[in-house]
Amino acid sequence: MKKVLLVFCFGLVLGNTYGQDSVMFRKIADEILLNGTCYTNLKTLCKTVGNRLSGSPAAAKAVEWGRTAMTDAGFPTVLLQPVDVPVCYIEFDALSLGNSKGTGGKALDAEVIEVGSFEELETLSTDKIKGKIVFFNYKMKQNFVSAFDAYGDAVKYRWAGASAVAAKGAVGLIIRSISTGEDDYPHTGSMRYVDSIKKVPEMAVGNRTADKLAKKCKEGTVWARMQSECGMVQGEVRSYNVIGEIKGSQYPDRIITVGGHLDSWDVGEGAQDDGTGCVQSIEVLRTFIALGIRPKYTIRAVLFMNEENGLKGGEAYCDSAIAANEHHVLAIETDGGAGAPRGMSMEVSPAKREQIIKYKHLFMPYNVYDFTDEGGGADISPLKRKLGVPCAGLMPESQRYFDYHHTWNDVFETVNHRELKLGAVTLAQFIYLVDQHEIF
Amino acid sequence: MKKVLLVFCFGLVLGNTYGQDSVMFRKIADEILLNGTCYTNLKTLCKTVGNRLSGSPAAAKAVEWGRTAMTDAGFPTVLLQPVDVPVCYIEFDALSLGNSKGTGGKALDAEVIEVGSFEELETLSTDKIKGKIVFFNYKMKQNFVSAFDAYGDAVKYRWAGASAVAAKGAVGLIIRSISTGEDDYPHTGSMRYVDSIKKVPEMAVGNRTADKLAKKCKEGTVWARMQSECGMVQGEVRSYNVIGEIKGSQYPDRIITVGGHLDSWDVGEGAQDDGTGCVQSIEVLRTFIALGIRPKYTIRAVLFMNEENGLKGGEAYCDSAIAANEHHVLAIETDGGAGAPRGMSMEVSPAKREQIIKYKHLFMPYNVYDFTDEGGGADISPLKRKLGVPCAGLMPESQRYFDYHHTWNDVFETVNHRELKLGAVTLAQFIYLVDQHEIF
Repeated sequence: MKKVLLVFCFGLVLGNTYGQDSVMFRKIADEILLNGTCYTNLKTLCKTVGNRLSGSPAAAKAVEWGRTAMTDAGFPTVLLQPVDVPVCYIEFDALSLGNSKGTGGKALDAEVIEVGSFEELETLSTDKIKGKIVFFNYKMKQNFVSAFDAYGDAVKYRWAGASAVAAKGAVGLIIRSISTGEDDYPHTGSMRYVDSIKKVPEMAVGNRTADKLAKKCKEGTVWARMQSECGMVQGEVRSYNVIGEIKGSQYPDRIITVGGHLDSWDVGEGAQDDGTGCVQSIEVLRTFIALGIRPKYTIRAVLFMNEENGLKGGEAYCDSAIAANEHHVLAIETDGGAGAPRGMSMEVSPAKREQIIKYKHLFMPYNVYDFTDEGGGADISPLKRKLGVPCAGLMPESQRYFDYHHTWNDVFETVNHRELKLGAVTLAQFIYLVDQHEIF
Repeated sequence: MKKVLLVFCFGLVLGNTYGQDSVMFRKIADEILLNGTCYTNLKTLCKTVGNRLSGSPAAAKAVEWGRTAMTDAGFPTVLLQPVDVPVCYIEFDALSLGNSKGTGGKALDAEVIEVGSFEELETLSTDKIKGKIVFFNYKMKQNFVSAFDAYGDAVKYRWAGASAVAAKGAVGLIIRSISTGEDDYPHTGSMRYVDSIKKVPEMAVGNRTADKLAKKCKEGTVWARMQSECGMVQGEVRSYNVIGEIKGSQYPDRIITVGGHLDSWDVGEGAQDDGTGCVQSIEVLRTFIALGIRPKYTIRAVLFMNEENGLKGGEAYCDSAIAANEHHVLAIETDGGAGAPRGMSMEVSPAKREQIIKYKHLFMPYNVYDFTDEGGGADISPLKRKLGVPCAGLMPESQRYFDYHHTWNDVFETVNHRELKLGAVTLAQFIYLVDQHEIF
């Protein structure tokens, strides 16, 4: 009899906790969906600042925007964390890749050789490549269900292509954009040179131009002229991570970070990448304040600087944490665009993952069902690498992201207000859960 | 020993079937994502036909488009099924609702009274309402996670509002659009009069105009002038359902129908509602043909006419099925827009649902996880009602849909090629599964 009663009581207590969580999940969702300011914040960032390559005057304006947005949302603490970033006034045209050298404004004329993949390059003799411009015609694979996975598969051609072709004597590289888009916008993004190999210029062309170029290459000999003023200005300039914080009521020394990056490439408005992550991070703390949620842990919203071409903000944040001997229990990034949320990825221990998955049913009414993926985000990766901090990331619907990503197309109008807000709902609910149940 | 061996064999057979299904699911996805024609089909429909209210010359053009698209996709059978639809050349302005009478082009001037809900209307005396124009200011609830649910909650004000206010002596009705949009596009859609109550004109205003009107109503007395040429032309005109078919290899007399509706309201391009459903239905059969899948059952793609303002196409399809004594085992509708697929809704027996849910893991890699909802679609509802045919519906992500639905905003550019195709993938996989495993 006693045993039965005990089991019953336990059931009640468990049911009650779940019930309270469920009520708070609903309150969080109502606050953001009905009173959320993230969408108007994003509009201000996109339309009054626009694109904001770190080190540029626009990035400095973005820092001020971030400080004001956090202050307006009523954050008890807002501060700027210094980050020295490259003077990144890259003189791009829409085709050149980040960190690539240009042609010094001069014409570089050479025969084009189309190569489908690194494997095909491997089979070609140096004679075939020498003195030519390689056209890497690797299409981002549309039959990947996750566009993020398709990006992961294709991005190596942008990142490592120039040194690979230069090692065989090529004088330049043209790549098909890493893009799912059916339009002709070339997509920018970072690339890296191997130090020991000659640095040749690299440019991207849009999908339709790539189709035309491939057709021409099949028809006969094609010559191309590459011409670009692209290059990196030497030196550094002072910029900032923008940080807002609510002190923990029980464990003020334990920190949960949620952040996106404030800089963008110098095309479009940086709306999906990653104005979205910035305004969602602000929204989480604004919601806690609006609902009077007093977190047990210190919760920080961080707008990181220089994610796109250096990660100096992520490194500075981590180095500062090390210097101050801070105890970071969890870091969360939102840098996957403004699609409707599908789940949370996690780089945590199997036990912690299990603990979180126990609460999956609380997320299901919000169409958030996937807690299986690994991965956090670039800005929080130094925390993971240097301090072993558990990481997580918001997983939005990926289908549209690589139509916009790193192009002139990445503008405010591509963001849907409800999808943006639902992403913030998932983040706020996740952090509420982790905090209240002291999971980390 | 024998028992163990048996269990082992069973496991192998089951594993093998699942494995084969899984391979075919991948093939279906590859065929659509890499070679699919639904996106270009949709572009042709939207850009060469545009909006196509049934009974209009554009609807006749749409019928020809449908026949051509099916023929081009290699369907073995394509036919036009006659449907007599209202001569629906409604002289709308963007504010009037479908089926509503106008003011005969004359000015209707009256004081405006703002009413928040049917419940509030109930509390108001006839004296308060008589001779006035009621402004139903019921906002579509943004805190519903499913925008379809939010629509279900709010649409009664459009559908039944006019007779409700006329019963209390109102001379007209202005409603806030049934819309999640943050813009000012008024949303059209059907309404119905109660025969015994005086028919008063009904119009919709966009969300921003509704905000302004509400503000004015709070500030003091507001008068409004309603003026519209809106009205229904009497009589009927011959139109068609467009039907394409692959005969079943084993059970040619058992029919699985998949369809969307070909007509649209007379604003926008009918891209999401429901060009999407038409091209996805065509894509399913095209994919079966391209992959050499010989379905056991007869599979039909049906482009229904007159869903928006009469359902004559759905009724004609069902009546023809009754007349021909056809055996319909399952009917599937896709009329929820082009969002990325989330699941399939079903109006089937619990046992059949269980049988399908057994295969959920096959859908999970395609981010399709939700098989819990009820419901099929309007066009297939006569089959359900008159013949008890099991029904199902594609459940896409709903967040953007009611920003576009029934407005000038519903254009091709709102549709993402990958999301559109993934919806077709889910439909093709679902039908493949049901057919191969003879679930119905």
